[in-house]
Amino acid sequence: MGATHLKCRECATEYALEASFVCNRCFGPLEVAYDHTGLGDDPAATRRRIQAGPQNIWRYADFLPLAAPPAPSQRVGSILGLPAGCTPLLKADRLAERLGLGEVWVKNDAHNPTHSFKDRVVAVAAARARELGFDTLACASTGNLANAVAAAGAALGMDSYVFIPSNLEEQKILATGIYGTNLVKIRGNYDDVNRLCLELSGEHESWAFVNVNMRPYYAEGSKTLAYEISEQLGFRTPDRIVSPIASGSLFTKIGKGFREWLDLGLIEGDVPIMSGAQATGCSPVATAFGEGRNVCKPVKPDTIAKSLAIGNPADGPYAIDLANQTGGTIDAVTDDEIREGIKLLAETTGVFTETAGGVTTATLKKLADRGEIAKDERVVLVITGDGLKTLDAVRGSFESYEIDADVASFNTTVPTPTEVTA
Amino acid sequence: MGATHLKCRECATEYALEASFVCNRCFGPLEVAYDHTGLGDDPAATRRRIQAGPQNIWRYADFLPLAAPPAPSQRVGSILGLPAGCTPLLKADRLAERLGLGEVWVKNDAHNPTHSFKDRVVAVAAARARELGFDTLACASTGNLANAVAAAGAALGMDSYVFIPSNLEEQKILATGIYGTNLVKIRGNYDDVNRLCLELSGEHESWAFVNVNMRPYYAEGSKTLAYEISEQLGFRTPDRIVSPIASGSLFTKIGKGFREWLDLGLIEGDVPIMSGAQATGCSPVATAFGEGRNVCKPVKPDTIAKSLAIGNPADGPYAIDLANQTGGTIDAVTDDEIREGIKLLAETTGVFTETAGGVTTATLKKLADRGEIAKDERVVLVITGDGLKTLDAVRGSFESYEIDADVASFNTTVPTPTEVTA
Repeated sequence: MGATHLKCRECATEYALEASFVCNRCFGPLEVAYDHTGLGDDPAATRRRIQAGPQNIWRYADFLPLAAPPAPSQRVGSILGLPAGCTPLLKADRLAERLGLGEVWVKNDAHNPTHSFKDRVVAVAAARARELGFDTLACASTGNLANAVAAAGAALGMDSYVFIPSNLEEQKILATGIYGTNLVKIRGNYDDVNRLCLELSGEHESWAFVNVNMRPYYAEGSKTLAYEISEQLGFRTPDRIVSPIASGSLFTKIGKGFREWLDLGLIEGDVPIMSGAQATGCSPVATAFGEGRNVCKPVKPDTIAKSLAIGNPADGPYAIDLANQTGGTIDAVTDDEIREGIKLLAETTGVFTETAGGVTTATLKKLADRGEIAKDERVVLVITGDGLKTLDAVRGSFESYEIDADVASFNTTVPTPTEVTA
Repeated sequence: MGATHLKCRECATEYALEASFVCNRCFGPLEVAYDHTGLGDDPAATRRRIQAGPQNIWRYADFLPLAAPPAPSQRVGSILGLPAGCTPLLKADRLAERLGLGEVWVKNDAHNPTHSFKDRVVAVAAARARELGFDTLACASTGNLANAVAAAGAALGMDSYVFIPSNLEEQKILATGIYGTNLVKIRGNYDDVNRLCLELSGEHESWAFVNVNMRPYYAEGSKTLAYEISEQLGFRTPDRIVSPIASGSLFTKIGKGFREWLDLGLIEGDVPIMSGAQATGCSPVATAFGEGRNVCKPVKPDTIAKSLAIGNPADGPYAIDLANQTGGTIDAVTDDEIREGIKLLAETTGVFTETAGGVTTATLKKLADRGEIAKDERVVLVITGDGLKTLDAVRGSFESYEIDADVASFNTTVPTPTEVTA
């Protein structure tokens, strides 16, 4: 039971569970394969065991690629690094009403240790890295991953090297360097950073690049979003997921998570309609989807949604396949729509998201406006990051009053309902 | 069972559970009184019921001042507003080691919906406000409360008026206005803002000022920190709490929470040694404590720890009493020590805190350096807010490298272990 081997997604060649990520034969990406024997025999028992697990992703340890998962703990929190996952699923009635939809839920993954879903993938990659004997973490990042890797290094007592585009949001730079990591800013975009890290991972074999040589393990962390959403809905799938697409990894792994549990009979329903969301300033996957192609043409990103600014998305084709298989779509929204999306979500739910969440919310609005979402659909909007990390996007987006510290100044400056209706 | 009345902390006069906060007879502050009959009869049963509750503060609903607490839900998350509480308690072995201490835990309350402990107090105040028929929330805030009230208003569909000093950190202003609140910046400090709100609460009786007319309910929310810490330690009290002091409310209510559960036999141990933490730039409570006085002389705040910048702390005397009763202290640390505290916590635990958490961490270091903490003490450090909200404090606090996107540039610029040891 548990992870058994790595397997090429293209030619199915099998490899040992080591720090490798690409097939020697066909250069396809490697994925983790599992033996789930027994987990589906008594679904109720498996569900009960999950529910009795810790309040973090390790409650799903049976479905994650570790030889010996960190020991479960009933504690809220954990001494096994930062506790990722078990983020809130909020019923967003006021958002649904505003968009004319029946039922909308917000999966708020900003509610993670470093405020993005990247804590999930880093938790899995770092745990596997330790099993394999690594003592240094590294990554190529658009920002959120930088935060998560630097924090995980500090929490686990591992060294870290974090590579980012030099033009990243200041918030994400400060919330990385503070952890005492080796922070390397690259004069270039994310695709340049990624290429460099690919080269460096060959030269520094003692480093666990979470999204290069550890990528198969890293990517599995995203499945926990599907598990959690199902569990929070009473072990049922929702009808539709709206999720951002950068490399396409998160999007496809959410699909994989639902499928695994459906195959084992742990949840009821079907794989949800998968609706992908990109920014028009970096939409290679949406463009290919719109043109009926499967191969994504690389682009040079130019968008405020920097955490999604991957011009050459590794898992783009698989994301397109998943959208097509589930009757979904992949849309793109403008920077102005992203800013409006952030505001719409904040005003109707109390969740302040970064630009990536603005992309997802704006895409939900676009789907609603197009009439693509049936009234009886249960929709889950995946919010992957926090508004405090992309403040440029909201500066000047609202009014405020400035007054002296006396009632007269208040009364003459700030309209109140009584006055408005008077 | 449950909350029975409001009671003057000074003269014990009783009042109904309405929106009142000050005694008509002696002008003392009102507190919520409870009838806990039955809750201590079978402690094991009460503990089990708590553990079976939702993953937020409503698992402690029996100890909170609501007529009908929001219905418990097993879901992670909640449809009853934003899910506050159940934040991680992290074992901080590397921090303990750095300070020469035996056992240190970090209660990370930045892991709340708007990233501070204020979500707890607002959740309780807003729930009670709805019971009492209010449809507008308001507050006087040093920043974190502004975020929490504006978000709660958006989540619950209530109007809100938020009053802040105009010189607040930009991060906290943006993370308030985005929710569509009425944001009022006051040319003055927090004490001016507070005084104005006190006046306005008389003129706008249909507004629930969470920390003015709703203050008795609001303050009770802080008790949940004590409940959670106990529960997370296996229904035992820690030996010492290090907590920040602004108004003194959080500090004293943590003490009240432990005492309530000890009285009922729900937890083992004693009320912990309570160590308070202030910034030297605003330390009226630490100063009074140091001088052996009980009454705090108001000061004009001047510190980077703006969330603690209350020059005239309402609950200062009670905080001093608690520190004295438990054998604790109340210390103050400089702005430089605060910056170092932020860095120390981040580097050793992976938790990035705002200036208030820097105050607490620096105070823990000061107590350790003074040799005041016994080797066998179990210490809990209360981290109340998030580093992303006070970025000025960390700018320029670390080194980084900037390179071109090629291996040669990396090799010539970034030192790596192999080179260092060569």
